[in-house]
Amino acid sequence: MIETLIFSIEIIGTIAFALSGALRGIEKQLDLLGITILGVTAATGGGLIRDILLGSHPPLLFVNPIYVIVAALTTVIAFIVAYITQYYHYQFKNHLSSTFGSLLNLADAIGLGIFAVIGVQTAMQGGFFENAFLTLFVGIITGVGGGMLRDVLVGEIPFFLKKHIYFLAALLGSTSYYLLIKYDINNVIAMTIGSLLTFLIRLLASKYRWNLPKIPSKACADLDHVENHL
Amino acid sequence: MIETLIFSIEIIGTIAFALSGALRGIEKQLDLLGITILGVTAATGGGLIRDILLGSHPPLLFVNPIYVIVAALTTVIAFIVAYITQYYHYQFKNHLSSTFGSLLNLADAIGLGIFAVIGVQTAMQGGFFENAFLTLFVGIITGVGGGMLRDVLVGEIPFFLKKHIYFLAALLGSTSYYLLIKYDINNVIAMTIGSLLTFLIRLLASKYRWNLPKIPSKACADLDHVENHL
Amino acid sequence: MIETLIFSIEIIGTIAFALSGALRGIEKQLDLLGITILGVTAATGGGLIRDILLGSHPPLLFVNPIYVIVAALTTVIAFIVAYITQYYHYQFKNHLSSTFGSLLNLADAIGLGIFAVIGVQTAMQGGFFENAFLTLFVGIITGVGGGMLRDVLVGEIPFFLKKHIYFLAALLGSTSYYLLIKYDINNVIAMTIGSLLTFLIRLLASKYRWNLPKIPSKACADLDHVENHL
Repeated sequence: MIETLIFSIEIIGTIAFALSGALRGIEKQLDLLGITILGVTAATGGGLIRDILLGSHPPLLFVNPIYVIVAALTTVIAFIVAYITQYYHYQFKNHLSSTFGSLLNLADAIGLGIFAVIGVQTAMQGGFFENAFLTLFVGIITGVGGGMLRDVLVGEIPFFLKKHIYFLAALLGSTSYYLLIKYDINNVIAMTIGSLLTFLIRLLASKYRWNLPKIPSKACADLDHVENHL
Repeated sequence: MIETLIFSIEIIGTIAFALSGALRGIEKQLDLLGITILGVTAATGGGLIRDILLGSHPPLLFVNPIYVIVAALTTVIAFIVAYITQYYHYQFKNHLSSTFGSLLNLADAIGLGIFAVIGVQTAMQGGFFENAFLTLFVGIITGVGGGMLRDVLVGEIPFFLKKHIYFLAALLGSTSYYLLIKYDINNVIAMTIGSLLTFLIRLLASKYRWNLPKIPSKACADLDHVENHL
Repeated sequence: MIETLIFSIEIIGTIAFALSGALRGIEKQLDLLGITILGVTAATGGGLIRDILLGSHPPLLFVNPIYVIVAALTTVIAFIVAYITQYYHYQFKNHLSSTFGSLLNLADAIGLGIFAVIGVQTAMQGGFFENAFLTLFVGIITGVGGGMLRDVLVGEIPFFLKKHIYFLAALLGSTSYYLLIKYDINNVIAMTIGSLLTFLIRLLASKYRWNLPKIPSKACADLDHVENHL
């Protein structure tokens, strides 16, 4: 029962990240196969990096094909829906880009929350419970890894470097999950709370444009010439 | 004897991928050293990723320097040839770009076919014969990995996301090799058939522009504004 | 005592690479969090890749948080200094870009020298002393790895593919360190000499524009059309 619930959470995260990859691929004008590969990469990349860091060989995604299959199916369905509805979208251009952008943001936030928590769980099960730093760090990398590979492969700066609060949301969600497990809260409840917390912080930050400070672009305008001095 | 033949196939793949890296580097205006590094990365990257995934430490490319040496020599020779023939090419501009593009495509197709089969072989020898999914997946990643690193390092979207049928060709070649071994066909013959199959599908797809469907660019025109909504 | 000195060298390298990441992040208009992540990635990426290659699980950066903490602090301080001094820089535009570019170059050169030597040391301690090829190769990858991840994540071609002599400097520094250890020179002295050698070659190459040959851009002008022929 518990295992079924945990597995369901994993599958929701897989679908969400696969969808984010499919949307990125459509945006980048990839064909059906390219979109599928990008969706599978987004959905399995975080777990792959986690397994490499923790030394689990071969990585889980190769041992149990279910994640790749679910991710591939998700992207194919997303492609078909996008293909069918494209003519409709010609007439509502602004509508499309806002829907599209919101959907990518939403899917990525769901995946981030779920995979960060799964990463923490895997590190704890791997015997690193005592090392909170390692456990949380591996969790966050699991959360951001799939999206990172997805974005780097198509030449975009990854969300976790650009989006306000992205990394912070994963850190807070992972930490809350870690503490709940430490105080013996039921695993499924703890996973749900940790994932939801990451998800909500991400979406609120998006909606209300919570920003961290940066050096204004005016001061950087002349940086275009930096390369000449390197 | 058999070992010599297998080793020869490996070296052909190494030369082909090193050449593809050299051509990418020349295209990107890298200097001799940059081109050499890119060639070595393309030639050894697939095997490196394979060894990391299967947990072989340290990766083969560090243990036996022959692959790095062959790849470096290949790129230096390619550079010298390009350097000498550049003046000739000034006079035949269209000729150069079509020759150049075809050559990169050809070299990449040879490398893809050979490395996919070598990846499958390594996974089988690593004791994963029973798990066909893992074996084929690792094979394909070995095939596409070198080209992926080559393209990501210079800021290009990798071939396996963009080129028609690229991934599919590696999948069909790997699968045919796997089945031939399963039915006790001689390894060298099986490797040759598997590699040739990948190579031929890739080239035919290139020549006849076999395309998978994608969402037409008109529907995506307004996606330029997607980022604003994230 | 010896350990304290070696640790100090490591921390200097960590600070230098973190600074290079912070400067890249400011240049790319990332916010405070993005800059911090990029700085930590630059400072710990080389060691992370080294540990993955040598099969040390979990990688050192997760086991001992000191490197991440030092790198994060460095980037935050760099951000604050840049934030405070930006108004000053409005008035001295050329000054800013040349200062900025020189500083990024300098920080990267210090990090490269130190991490290449540390990589060689780790490979030797890991029992690979006899295999000079592996030891030096792993050293160089440790040196260039952090900067590679830093640059790829923000969509730039990494220094080690573009900068004159970059790879060669790391190779010469690593080799000198390796030979000094082989002839029983004190480790701290050997590390200092190896790091300084890399650093000096890098800076001299930068200052005097030591260049390796490349195919002139005129010959490559028509390569813009290469993609059409693939």
